[in-house]
Amino acid sequence: MHSPVFRPATKSDIPAIVAMLADDPLGARRESPAQPLPSSYYAAYSAISADPNNELIVCTIEDRVVGVMQLTFIPYLTYRGSWRALIEGVRIASSERNSGVGTRMFEHAIARANARRCVMLQLTTDRERPDALRFYEKLGFVASHHGMKLKLAP
Amino acid sequence: MHSPVFRPATKSDIPAIVAMLADDPLGARRESPAQPLPSSYYAAYSAISADPNNELIVCTIEDRVVGVMQLTFIPYLTYRGSWRALIEGVRIASSERNSGVGTRMFEHAIARANARRCVMLQLTTDRERPDALRFYEKLGFVASHHGMKLKLAP
Repeated sequence: MHSPVFRPATKSDIPAIVAMLADDPLGARRESPAQPLPSSYYAAYSAISADPNNELIVCTIEDRVVGVMQLTFIPYLTYRGSWRALIEGVRIASSERNSGVGTRMFEHAIARANARRCVMLQLTTDRERPDALRFYEKLGFVASHHGMKLKLAP
Repeated sequence: MHSPVFRPATKSDIPAIVAMLADDPLGARRESPAQPLPSSYYAAYSAISADPNNELIVCTIEDRVVGVMQLTFIPYLTYRGSWRALIEGVRIASSERNSGVGTRMFEHAIARANARRCVMLQLTTDRERPDALRFYEKLGFVASHHGMKLKLAP
């Protein structure tokens, strides 16, 4: 395998990222990958880029975008005042699944969380993704919590 | 019941907040409420206050702090570019449990999330807190996800 490279996403990566978000049984229902993309994707990208506590990271192999994840660093009073890192929106191109790219992405996420002195890395994973649960457990994550969502009216 | 009032936490609220965080079977193991408080609590408070996407909110009744929660507003590319609100560190003073204060706190959280145009409000709740799970389900939250945590070495 060529070594994956990690870097902050740029605006020109957005179509490739949205294509990955949509190439998934759950994502297919809620994304809109046809070009031109809805401007709401670019507005969200601007908000993410402007926030020093958010990092949208792409994984590339030979300059192709093959993975994406978003890290959010959050300060809390709990645990005597501490930072946590939250991971969301993890996707890997279908061509690269089971290739080790996912593990490398999480190694990168852990390195970023340590660099930001976080005491914990956390995520929620859909109960409809049993393979993802096993993947995260192998990395050392513990499913100690229920992940609960309340959809709000638009 | 006197009407609860919600406002951003101030530095002088920190001892009362930490006392609530520690007054709990899980929190007792990880907090340090004896005065003077470790300076790490004040450092975390400064980081929270400086971040326009974080709100540490106290609930007061007749000027007594009886509840606390932290809201984090996060922009994502998912759902065609959208914001979500994350709730963490919800605590209610033992004197006020089952008084309706918790429901009022969540009404306030939902109002804040709507004001920030969030499409979703999300939280994780420890599997060791079955009463909390039922409370959130009554509010309309769905336990569709596993909440997974990876503790990082300090």
